[in-house]
Amino acid sequence: MHKELTLDRIRAVLARLEETIIFALIERSQFSLNRVVYLPGALGVALGDRSLINFLLHGTEVLHSQLRRYTSSDEHPFFSDLPDPILERLDFPDVLVTDGTLNFNARIREVYEQHVVTQICAEGDDGQYGSSAVNDVVCLQALSKRIHYGEFVAESKFQAYTDRYAPLIAAGDREGLVSLLTDTEVEINVVQRVREKTAQYAGLIQAANDSTLTPEIVVKIYKDWVIPLNKEVQVEYLLRRPVL
Amino acid sequence: MHKELTLDRIRAVLARLEETIIFALIERSQFSLNRVVYLPGALGVALGDRSLINFLLHGTEVLHSQLRRYTSSDEHPFFSDLPDPILERLDFPDVLVTDGTLNFNARIREVYEQHVVTQICAEGDDGQYGSSAVNDVVCLQALSKRIHYGEFVAESKFQAYTDRYAPLIAAGDREGLVSLLTDTEVEINVVQRVREKTAQYAGLIQAANDSTLTPEIVVKIYKDWVIPLNKEVQVEYLLRRPVL
Repeated sequence: MHKELTLDRIRAVLARLEETIIFALIERSQFSLNRVVYLPGALGVALGDRSLINFLLHGTEVLHSQLRRYTSSDEHPFFSDLPDPILERLDFPDVLVTDGTLNFNARIREVYEQHVVTQICAEGDDGQYGSSAVNDVVCLQALSKRIHYGEFVAESKFQAYTDRYAPLIAAGDREGLVSLLTDTEVEINVVQRVREKTAQYAGLIQAANDSTLTPEIVVKIYKDWVIPLNKEVQVEYLLRRPVL
Repeated sequence: MHKELTLDRIRAVLARLEETIIFALIERSQFSLNRVVYLPGALGVALGDRSLINFLLHGTEVLHSQLRRYTSSDEHPFFSDLPDPILERLDFPDVLVTDGTLNFNARIREVYEQHVVTQICAEGDDGQYGSSAVNDVVCLQALSKRIHYGEFVAESKFQAYTDRYAPLIAAGDREGLVSLLTDTEVEINVVQRVREKTAQYAGLIQAANDSTLTPEIVVKIYKDWVIPLNKEVQVEYLLRRPVL
């Protein structure tokens, strides 16, 4: 098995992404919800029928695409009309067996705008649209990476237990796959760790500032969205995976 | 005195910026130094004679400028050829008395590339140029905001002790100003707080991952660069300030 696919390596990446996600949520939660940021056509003629978050997310991906961000198999763009990299392509090892079409970002963005940002920010409008959108982009990119990392988790499990996964994939047995790849103990550990980390990070800040972000909110985001969507990615990855 | 200029408010902003800076340094320190990111013309024809960091910092400012980032008096761009905002201008209160020309970003970028990133990252090249540059931009923006906040500190001090500052400004007495605005106890407290915060944040991560960032490194960056440059901003602000 390629070292990118060992469970230790995958767990370290996922654990480290928790910091990135928690930091990003803390930064965004400094500003009010500012619903107008997500409303198409709400912020002036220059944006046309786009929302501000659409404008900034697209502009950011245009830049990052040129830095070859989306040539990495653990990155997925929110947009498809992106320019080619200006940097030489890196030789990443092809550890996933995929046609590269799996992309949950439309769902992730919908979930973020409707269920995540609404929970982490105070209701209202403080006029800080730019700062809100800049931090939204960081949150969206971190959540997207975390959720799509399910592809690596799934490939790792497939290689370790091919005999169990292959028949379920061949039969298109979605429920069987969900049941086989669900590890309740691991999920409980992730939630517990996220609760503790948020309590520590946000707690340090709250001592001096008002922050609306509590461990319960981050736990709820993980339980309701991050973990289920990651599991959906695993299932979709496996259903598309060729079984030799 | 405007509430933006009260010492409590300024201290809260500066303390909160410590988290942003420490988080950003932690994220950047995951990747190797990657010197090639800062070398003009080192990364392919599309960049011409620009460095990768130049390309990304400029592209990011083009986006943020359109979100009116640089209409805020606590933000300073690294580039001057930026487009107009596409959002309506916010009515910020004019709490600074300045012509808006003070800008330390050329110095800050030089210091960052030569003395900051070299300390927080492991020497070497891991090929992660895009991720390095993306995190550099976050670090540079956070350091720039922190250092330029000296303008608010200086205006607050001037308004509180106009009788002491005005004669020194009128006389162009740089050394007198440095001496009057230096508060050694406050500086010691800042350094102590930064040391403790980094120990806590980086410590939590180090438990699971290799991080090269230690509290001593962040303390050194504050002592050698953040605090002195912030003080220089204060002096330059005051020397340009009209004394009625």
